Amino acid sequence: MLELYNGIEEDMQIVEKELQAVLQTQDPFLTETSSHLFYAGGKRLRPALSILGAKFCNFNLEDVKPLAVALELIHMATLIHDDVVDNSLTRRGIPTVNAKWGKGISTHIGTYLFAKSLILISQYEEKKPLISKVLSDVSVKMCEGEIRQISASYDIDQVPKDYFYRVKRKTALLITASVQLGAVACGADRKTYLTLRRYGNNIGMAFQITDDILDLVADQGKLGKPVGGDLRQGIITLPVIYALAKSGKKERLAELAGKIEKSEEEVQEAIEIIRSCGAIDYSFEVTNKYLSKAKEELMALPDLPARKTLAIIADFIGIRKY
Amino acid sequence: MLELYNGIEEDMQIVEKELQAVLQTQDPFLTETSSHLFYAGGKRLRPALSILGAKFCNFNLEDVKPLAVALELIHMATLIHDDVVDNSLTRRGIPTVNAKWGKGISTHIGTYLFAKSLILISQYEEKKPLISKVLSDVSVKMCEGEIRQISASYDIDQVPKDYFYRVKRKTALLITASVQLGAVACGADRKTYLTLRRYGNNIGMAFQITDDILDLVADQGKLGKPVGGDLRQGIITLPVIYALAKSGKKERLAELAGKIEKSEEEVQEAIEIIRSCGAIDYSFEVTNKYLSKAKEELMALPDLPARKTLAIIADFIGIRKY
Repeated sequence: MLELYNGIEEDMQIVEKELQAVLQTQDPFLTETSSHLFYAGGKRLRPALSILGAKFCNFNLEDVKPLAVALELIHMATLIHDDVVDNSLTRRGIPTVNAKWGKGISTHIGTYLFAKSLILISQYEEKKPLISKVLSDVSVKMCEGEIRQISASYDIDQVPKDYFYRVKRKTALLITASVQLGAVACGADRKTYLTLRRYGNNIGMAFQITDDILDLVADQGKLGKPVGGDLRQGIITLPVIYALAKSGKKERLAELAGKIEKSEEEVQEAIEIIRSCGAIDYSFEVTNKYLSKAKEELMALPDLPARKTLAIIADFIGIRKY
Repeated sequence: MLELYNGIEEDMQIVEKELQAVLQTQDPFLTETSSHLFYAGGKRLRPALSILGAKFCNFNLEDVKPLAVALELIHMATLIHDDVVDNSLTRRGIPTVNAKWGKGISTHIGTYLFAKSLILISQYEEKKPLISKVLSDVSVKMCEGEIRQISASYDIDQVPKDYFYRVKRKTALLITASVQLGAVACGADRKTYLTLRRYGNNIGMAFQITDDILDLVADQGKLGKPVGGDLRQGIITLPVIYALAKSGKKERLAELAGKIEKSEEEVQEAIEIIRSCGAIDYSFEVTNKYLSKAKEELMALPDLPARKTLAIIADFIGIRKY
């Protein structure tokens, strides 16, 4: 993904080194376990968005760097906790912390990364209190989204509104905060950071919907984890909600999607029903609407290279395969 | 424990109501799961210490209340995550969140409570930045302690220094922060809050050592959970380290303590070896040294009712049975 980050390549390399430095400790086991996901790679979308947001004001990498690192730490913390919850064995093509060291280490490493982010964020307190106010609020809502996802699992009577509620909390809010707070960290005015926030919300929603589509249609090798994971866990995503309403085989799909123990054949059958009724195309349309709105928002910003990069990121989200 | 909190009973009732209010949400399931541990009771030691610390300066409950609530939320978060890690089924005599709703809800509720505490703490940022700096640092170190505990489990070649390293991180730092930051929240001078910090460190160390003793000798009904839990999980505590060095049956104890799967008879046999070699008396002596130091520290503070209550708390820690 680094090739997408036109004009901020050097900034991103510095952030990457800083992330690595923050995870370095005196305790080799702690360093190994807490850096494991970091070394597995990742798109570093949230740090990139924070830097791009910061480009619309008095950009100074030093001002935005702690935030950029903190955002990736928060993101990694949620992934590691999710892998505990879902018993996931692979992520980004390698064993999860959970698979390698068990749920004990995994639970504490997730919280550790989250707590590490707070040390970085606390640097902004006196001068930019909005940053920790927004991030603490977002963190609470992210948990609310995850809890709602579990309590709504296997529930086939969901409507798109339920789904969008969760998507916003699970993913869109942190992406929104990234681009908004990057601007705040460098002293942006309210109008600028509110525009960036709207852009962020739109790409954030699109990002998660695409993720949910990819869970049904991706190439497993590129995805780095098995397809159909959401169905197996009973997570009812947008294509499923569409298919439950529109497919000729909706009764059969309801039976399969609501079933707690599914065989591999049943997962594949459900995927086939979802794919063959236009649910994927419909979901991509929804994604594209969000991405169009995101790009419209950008028009209110000055025509800087960062604006072009933000537009490229929006385009990438629409076509990504991983 | 409320009867111990002389002179702050009303303040504690207000904090209790505030805790309840903070856990109230629009989502009944979220409210139920996140309040479950709150309703199970607890000593509320950390809020009490923060209020008592605040009494040594310009006391105003409104200034310390968000901190008091945040401290209990952080504490509850760690208990709920610990129950995921340890697969614990009961705490405070009732089923854990983990037992009742599974590790998914439990993992996210733990993080949710932690994140909720951040919203409260963010109120202090502009005027008392030390509060979030200390708490973010403490949170990181608490995770370090937990991770070290897992990586050192079943390791019978530990020395007391390894144990004290973990005890400080697991328990003493948050107790220390409670009494210190309570004073900071109400504008205490550096000399006062450093004295309170030393008091806090001493009672905090004593508190965890007592906890580890109780895990071997308590009445199960009063403890609210089965005895011998640490041994079963391979956690090597001070009485075990003492017995591994001094007991006539130290080879047998080493065999038992290092064994990953222990029968109930083996756990009882290990407890008997530990009890019969003076390890419990020795551990109580260590506890009492910390408590004496804690009370000595108090002598540097003005002779207010709060000072007496802090001394009573220190005494209670030495004799508590739960």
